[in-house]
Amino acid sequence: MRFTSHMDLALDEARKAGARGEVPVGAVIVGPDGAVVAADGNRTRALNDPTAHAEMLVIRAACAATGSERLLGHDLYVTLEPCAMCAAAIAAARIRRVYYGASDPKSGGVAHGACVFDHPQSHHAPEVYDGLAERDAAQLLKDFFAQKRGAE
Amino acid sequence: MRFTSHMDLALDEARKAGARGEVPVGAVIVGPDGAVVAADGNRTRALNDPTAHAEMLVIRAACAATGSERLLGHDLYVTLEPCAMCAAAIAAARIRRVYYGASDPKSGGVAHGACVFDHPQSHHAPEVYDGLAERDAAQLLKDFFAQKRGAE
Repeated sequence: MRFTSHMDLALDEARKAGARGEVPVGAVIVGPDGAVVAADGNRTRALNDPTAHAEMLVIRAACAATGSERLLGHDLYVTLEPCAMCAAAIAAARIRRVYYGASDPKSGGVAHGACVFDHPQSHHAPEVYDGLAERDAAQLLKDFFAQKRGAE
Repeated sequence: MRFTSHMDLALDEARKAGARGEVPVGAVIVGPDGAVVAADGNRTRALNDPTAHAEMLVIRAACAATGSERLLGHDLYVTLEPCAMCAAAIAAARIRRVYYGASDPKSGGVAHGACVFDHPQSHHAPEVYDGLAERDAAQLLKDFFAQKRGAE
């Protein structure tokens, strides 16, 4: 299967996360040459790990793959606005660009709340592009939580 | 060896991290019964993982040990003010109390910059106690960076 864009691959990871009973968020890291270095979805439940957000998993996988703490020239695609934890990890990893889908007024830490990149304590601020495939990304989350409420 | 306090154990983890060439920060998680559930120091270099701060490692270890994403009734002792990433992970894990040593105006995310717990997007805010063994914790970091500069 050929993905027409990196965000489509992130959406696919989000769908797979939802099918596992995880909040459907997916993320992809693309290297300086345009190749996908890591792709994964939320695994907080499966791993019993509150830090296992999609962004954290792909950052850790990409750092392991490249043998470096810093992902210079790498870009992150994620279906939902990163929370403060993920935003600070993105800064620590020196990710070049962040493309995200749905906005997250409830838990976001990029354009909401902590606004992690907007303080001098964030030693790096990536270029941020929001609203990529926003409708699809938001719909996935909406359907997931509607189904969850229906099942209760 | 018997540690007179949980912060002493965190300081010991910080010293061990420094001896490994890592920024000397240590952390300990204590369960509701007062028993140490996890203790570790920074391992970002050894693991090539920018998320491997002491706090993140002990949260993940404690969650694995307890088989839960949430550490209700658990307390965290850490030698340095947590950054935004660790603060948001602390909130996600529902840590009850955070005791930290040195203040971190440069990279802190609790009392500085992102002030992660101060926004509604942080769905939990622990009780925070700062300045515990502050002098020892700060001195460890000062010595480490002075030695590093001297070696350059």
